[in-house]
Amino acid sequence: MVLIPEVSKLSRSAFRRLGMTPPKTPDAPPARLSLISRHLAPVYPINTPYAVERLPSTVDTSLLPRIQVREITTTTPKMSQPAHPTLLIPGPIEFDDAVLQSMSHFSESHVSAGFVATFGETLSMLRKLFQTTDPASQPFVLSGSGTLGWDLVAANLIEVGEDVLVLGTGYFSDGFADCLRVYGANVTELKAPVGTKPTLPEIEKALSEKKYKAITVTHVDTSTGVLSELKNLSALVHKVSPDTLIIVDGVCSVACEEIDFDAWGLDGVVTASQKAIGCPAGLSISMFSGRAMKAFENRKSPPSAYFASMKNWTPIMQNYEAKKPSYFATPSPQLVHALHTALSQILAKPVAERFAGHKAASDKIKAAIGALGLKQVAANPDEQAHGMTAIYLPEGVKGAELLPILAKKGVVFAGGIHKEIVTKYIRFGHMGVSVLDPTRGDIERAVKALEEGLAELGYTKS
Amino acid sequence: MVLIPEVSKLSRSAFRRLGMTPPKTPDAPPARLSLISRHLAPVYPINTPYAVERLPSTVDTSLLPRIQVREITTTTPKMSQPAHPTLLIPGPIEFDDAVLQSMSHFSESHVSAGFVATFGETLSMLRKLFQTTDPASQPFVLSGSGTLGWDLVAANLIEVGEDVLVLGTGYFSDGFADCLRVYGANVTELKAPVGTKPTLPEIEKALSEKKYKAITVTHVDTSTGVLSELKNLSALVHKVSPDTLIIVDGVCSVACEEIDFDAWGLDGVVTASQKAIGCPAGLSISMFSGRAMKAFENRKSPPSAYFASMKNWTPIMQNYEAKKPSYFATPSPQLVHALHTALSQILAKPVAERFAGHKAASDKIKAAIGALGLKQVAANPDEQAHGMTAIYLPEGVKGAELLPILAKKGVVFAGGIHKEIVTKYIRFGHMGVSVLDPTRGDIERAVKALEEGLAELGYTKS
Repeated sequence: MVLIPEVSKLSRSAFRRLGMTPPKTPDAPPARLSLISRHLAPVYPINTPYAVERLPSTVDTSLLPRIQVREITTTTPKMSQPAHPTLLIPGPIEFDDAVLQSMSHFSESHVSAGFVATFGETLSMLRKLFQTTDPASQPFVLSGSGTLGWDLVAANLIEVGEDVLVLGTGYFSDGFADCLRVYGANVTELKAPVGTKPTLPEIEKALSEKKYKAITVTHVDTSTGVLSELKNLSALVHKVSPDTLIIVDGVCSVACEEIDFDAWGLDGVVTASQKAIGCPAGLSISMFSGRAMKAFENRKSPPSAYFASMKNWTPIMQNYEAKKPSYFATPSPQLVHALHTALSQILAKPVAERFAGHKAASDKIKAAIGALGLKQVAANPDEQAHGMTAIYLPEGVKGAELLPILAKKGVVFAGGIHKEIVTKYIRFGHMGVSVLDPTRGDIERAVKALEEGLAELGYTKS
Repeated sequence: MVLIPEVSKLSRSAFRRLGMTPPKTPDAPPARLSLISRHLAPVYPINTPYAVERLPSTVDTSLLPRIQVREITTTTPKMSQPAHPTLLIPGPIEFDDAVLQSMSHFSESHVSAGFVATFGETLSMLRKLFQTTDPASQPFVLSGSGTLGWDLVAANLIEVGEDVLVLGTGYFSDGFADCLRVYGANVTELKAPVGTKPTLPEIEKALSEKKYKAITVTHVDTSTGVLSELKNLSALVHKVSPDTLIIVDGVCSVACEEIDFDAWGLDGVVTASQKAIGCPAGLSISMFSGRAMKAFENRKSPPSAYFASMKNWTPIMQNYEAKKPSYFATPSPQLVHALHTALSQILAKPVAERFAGHKAASDKIKAAIGALGLKQVAANPDEQAHGMTAIYLPEGVKGAELLPILAKKGVVFAGGIHKEIVTKYIRFGHMGVSVLDPTRGDIERAVKALEEGLAELGYTKS
């Protein structure tokens, strides 16, 4: 059962502020309450995008409308997913029914109290997922692809001509470097051979040669399945270059790999909704440290983007989290509802259990792949992601032939994307419900399909 | 009934390319076919984000996987919207059941043939909505708020120090000007008093004083309900400053006000999904002319944004429309499905009928408001939008009191947003199903609620 934090308290206190008696609410909210979400929150402030604190001081705010009351209904829409091939690419992943159902939420104003509460709770839940209790940490949820997170970093934390060290692990670290250059950063890429990552001594050497404003690391490079270790990396950076901001691309790691934001001293983690978080694509999700926000505030020049500007979004995010309506650009209520549902599900258990679940599944998958005589792009077991596996095709087997066979068996894998090896490997994503809901049998089916598919193409383990 | 353009032809030809016999398809697709969308398209290329044309020439593309076959199922998910107050703010609007149902589409790869076909058709349908047949016109659909369209213009069509003339109509033209300045444009704002727009002679004078790279006009300024006339404006610009790009902010106008892209010689129209198009928020939607795309290609400097870069997105949009998988950043399959459904519904009838329907409803609403003795912010009938009405509150009536009364009656209006008059008016959005589906009775209910609400507050027509 998914519980909404303090929803009844919220509306009761709102009633009290009005000097009214709060309506009787059920003692136990019905299951899937979050799917109908704010339907049980009978009170909301008015639909004006102007938060009071953004109004010019000349306006008499006592004249602004404050509260609207709407009818309560508890009708829950019904849905079930039609049969479809299981999507086991490294994002988007398979989504839970309840999450998809939240995508169909009826239309709501982006500044209604119901939606403001949903958005505010979503931001607060992100703090738990990222394991940060520092009130100076700042979450952002913006409409956009995960890529928008790179712009958020590049346009707000870096000024023209500042040096950034990019740890090169593949296609996605290259992309981050490209984005940083667009906004004027002076990028140094420390590249590792395909399937590996830069070593700590190499990074220490690079950090000692130049003073970097920031270092970026792709926690899991989706092009190779290489996992970068963050804890020791962060400790190293804090030791040898304490002023350098530590920025993590967590698109393929948040919610399946451990990220201990405060304890590890991270300054920024950017991610997307459609991977291990398990919410449809369309949201850029990020967390920045107080130190990163301070670096932003201390910029000499204004931010170099508009939609991706922290100047525009920070007060809005803070207002939403404080349950105050606020407006810069219209968010997507449906996607935010789906994210709220996904995060409620994730946080119903300790996050450590979630990470352990992904690791256990990954270990099984990697053992099965090894047993089939296949090699991974990430050769070193310490450098293997737990939410995906990049698998080299055996000699003589073409992805062009294997993947359609897998699809016929109801399992969709992804082809290669790293340009040096693009035709030589396939990618198997194992995140979210496919891994954590054992009743689905997705992983077993995928491994069996892979084994049978290879056999059909004449492959035998040598 | 919503028909998908050429879906059966599409899969049949795909089969033929494979030398296979196409499967028997039903003669008449079932109603709501688009909701299960590509479930009937049994063929798709493989999940690799790399479009063939983006691969290095050293790669043997014959090794790349091409086709996957998946099972056909015709199960349609069921849903209905729970009872909720009718959202009559100027966006987001009320959404059709089928559109919301598409939001719950099961997870699909963003590079699967099924989704590629959906996205490609969506882009082609936008050409019809914007009334452009010029093949050089380029549609874009990006994950983001409508505001992202401003970045798309500012970061791609304008270079640092270039002059842009912004026609000032209110809150939203001010926002566009701010965005342009962030990317280095030299902005001149030609401001009109609240509730009006700059006149053609004023614009002609401004254009004669300086050579502008672009002129921007907010077709409907959502802060005032002022409608800008585009046809004569465009003719004027083409006459007195033929090199100036004509850029329209159509966030509150596309799909409810006539826009004849080719005939009027427009160069760019940017909009969002959640207003008259009738699809949940989360998509930035735009159309640019061949001339605008040429201006982009002739830039001296690279585009000044990354996620909002036409350099990154143009090949992707062109590939999707050509039904070729391609990748820059992950789009939102669910939102694109919903947009596909919304556009299919819109284009089931001539767009002229849609505009006429909005105009007829608007005329009725404005007459009713006049009959109540209320004044509009946009005083001049020629300058009144057809998808929203900004209404001055009568002397002595506070929005703080009126809007909650309306909400109790099941109708959600919006408060003010223009800072000069923020507490003095309310906004009534009348777009999409609320206007075009007479069985809903939304408009009648809203007008009645307004009349009763005012009476309850002691207002009588003087």
